[in-house]
Amino acid sequence: MNSFSFQNPTKIVFGSGTVSQLGKLAKPYGKSILLVYGSGSIKKTGLYDEVMNQLNAIEAKVVELSGIEPNPRLTSVNRGIELCRSEKVDLVLAVGGGSVLDAAKAIAAGALYDGDVWDFFIHKAVIRDALPLGTILTLSATGSEMNGNAVISNWETKQKRAFGSMHAYPRFSILDPTLTFTVPRDQTVNGVVDIMSHVFEQYFTLTPNAPLQERLCESILLTVIENAESALEKPNDYDARANLMLCGTMALNGGLISVGTDNDWASHGIEHEISAIYDIPHGAGLSIVFPNWMKYVYRERIDRFTQYAERVWGIERGSKSDEELALAGIEATCAFFDRIGAPAALAYYNIGREHLDTMAKEAVLFGPIGSFKQLREADVREILEMAL
Amino acid sequence: MNSFSFQNPTKIVFGSGTVSQLGKLAKPYGKSILLVYGSGSIKKTGLYDEVMNQLNAIEAKVVELSGIEPNPRLTSVNRGIELCRSEKVDLVLAVGGGSVLDAAKAIAAGALYDGDVWDFFIHKAVIRDALPLGTILTLSATGSEMNGNAVISNWETKQKRAFGSMHAYPRFSILDPTLTFTVPRDQTVNGVVDIMSHVFEQYFTLTPNAPLQERLCESILLTVIENAESALEKPNDYDARANLMLCGTMALNGGLISVGTDNDWASHGIEHEISAIYDIPHGAGLSIVFPNWMKYVYRERIDRFTQYAERVWGIERGSKSDEELALAGIEATCAFFDRIGAPAALAYYNIGREHLDTMAKEAVLFGPIGSFKQLREADVREILEMAL
Repeated sequence: MNSFSFQNPTKIVFGSGTVSQLGKLAKPYGKSILLVYGSGSIKKTGLYDEVMNQLNAIEAKVVELSGIEPNPRLTSVNRGIELCRSEKVDLVLAVGGGSVLDAAKAIAAGALYDGDVWDFFIHKAVIRDALPLGTILTLSATGSEMNGNAVISNWETKQKRAFGSMHAYPRFSILDPTLTFTVPRDQTVNGVVDIMSHVFEQYFTLTPNAPLQERLCESILLTVIENAESALEKPNDYDARANLMLCGTMALNGGLISVGTDNDWASHGIEHEISAIYDIPHGAGLSIVFPNWMKYVYRERIDRFTQYAERVWGIERGSKSDEELALAGIEATCAFFDRIGAPAALAYYNIGREHLDTMAKEAVLFGPIGSFKQLREADVREILEMAL
Repeated sequence: MNSFSFQNPTKIVFGSGTVSQLGKLAKPYGKSILLVYGSGSIKKTGLYDEVMNQLNAIEAKVVELSGIEPNPRLTSVNRGIELCRSEKVDLVLAVGGGSVLDAAKAIAAGALYDGDVWDFFIHKAVIRDALPLGTILTLSATGSEMNGNAVISNWETKQKRAFGSMHAYPRFSILDPTLTFTVPRDQTVNGVVDIMSHVFEQYFTLTPNAPLQERLCESILLTVIENAESALEKPNDYDARANLMLCGTMALNGGLISVGTDNDWASHGIEHEISAIYDIPHGAGLSIVFPNWMKYVYRERIDRFTQYAERVWGIERGSKSDEELALAGIEATCAFFDRIGAPAALAYYNIGREHLDTMAKEAVLFGPIGSFKQLREADVREILEMAL
């Protein structure tokens, strides 16, 4: 295990009906609140009204920014930053899934920065401060509710980039599994793939002697696999939704499950290039990229993949070689993705070879990606080719 | 899973040589530092000098409180509180194991309280504030480095009691596994039992539908079992020591591994009564109490105990009945404790029936204890009898 430091100050409030605690949680931060949300589904479900009742009860002045996109755009972030400044916002409140939360983080950081917020995403500036952020999560997926990461798309430059900062951790996050009852099937599937992918990025590591971290990762994978189909079959299954929600949060809660190990994140990098150009859902992109990444890299440390096959998928070694066992684990992953209806190839979105070169080039713009296997442009190109 | 809220603001800095970060970590809190430690072993190992070098480099004014007992005493806590007041202390710095850390927490809380610090332990007052606390851990056991709990012995009243408060979380904790290389064998054993016991208190729950939490608990148990004997055989085995240290912290890091479930803590309550009278090491008391608690309660929810036998000890069900499988898991626990040299009975300390009645009565002073099975005075008496 490597040396590390870890801190995660976010307060999470988890359970049915916990939105009723919003007023109490928001009040200490001030009166002027920027409410950030997406397409308006929170108006249909009644969540919007519930939020406004809570905020009215503490006599907050609410400014709204709606219409955050599924791959949240820099233009929306900039609108939010302007509102924060003109309305002297004290607290940014994000109500939605990871996209809304990520946009809100970028807004909170950008509002206190005397420059272009995109600087944070292209390593031109470091976040030194941010407005306080609170969140109400409506989708189990990104873990954004308990970490300092944000991913934003710059549609002008066709770039999708991430930042991570201690200042961007939410002060509080309300996690009510019942709010995910209305999440459509495809988004639930994408969320499941996203959660599993976050674990994969941390689990497939070359760092030796981290047995607890490995088991924490496996614990999340097993629990997601066990609950995904229940949530898909019965969208109102509280236990399944609650388990998925907790798994989503734990999978990326500041990296607690993988402290002291090198993370990979190459598959996320590759996926970002796909959705930067084609605007496909992040989770769908991951279900296309990850199995192909696995097939491309598993020989780097085959024992990690045989362990994955045995512990996560319960595949018995029997007379299998390491190679056969590792591949059986990858096949089990593909079969599971297929069973829940996650796409397996770029062809699903009618994506062909047109932009593979651009994507491969952009993915390694700041140098090789990944740590399990360092990928250069040609490697990324090959994985994209395998994903066609 | 129940509703819950969770927050753990402690920053941990983990790895070999991380004491070199002390100055930087302590500096923001002010110049006057109360250094709390135990019997002086930190002087023999050179850690004391290293700490003082760090504190001198930031020009801190250091006040010392040494001699904190293995079961830390209220008298020591009160001496520390007086020092905080007379020396206008800005930061309490604990260097040692759980006892030193717990004493430091009580000092930090008591220093800002206009009354008797014991009030916090007997439910007479609630902690509203505390001095900032930093820790350097030298023993893997209590998890005190990343939670807000403290256990203190009042030798006058022969009571050993605990408090828990958000204000008592360390601001930072330095976890250097090499500092545990010199921990004697018996203390290493006691630490292992303590870590496992913390997990048991959370794992054996009646709360249904918490599969992730169950697996997180099992992950820690498996990792402790896997590393304990290596650490005992080769005290300088960095990986084994590091894995134990991380397990200790994760086992009780504010309850993250058991969010949304009822915890038991009856065995700790019973152990506190034993060491309140006999001053035996906490871990040793737990290795005596816990297997007997298990034998007394396992029928309450036998599936949790059969799962424990299968997943933690790898016992195959074969043709075993639930009862047989559950008991096999408990026996495996006893065999492991025996293998590492943890005591199995009160007789090990020449403790007889003399004070069993008092202990049973004191254990339920505030009502029945435990949640897996609610224990009344007669139940506690019976468990103590089994432990003779």
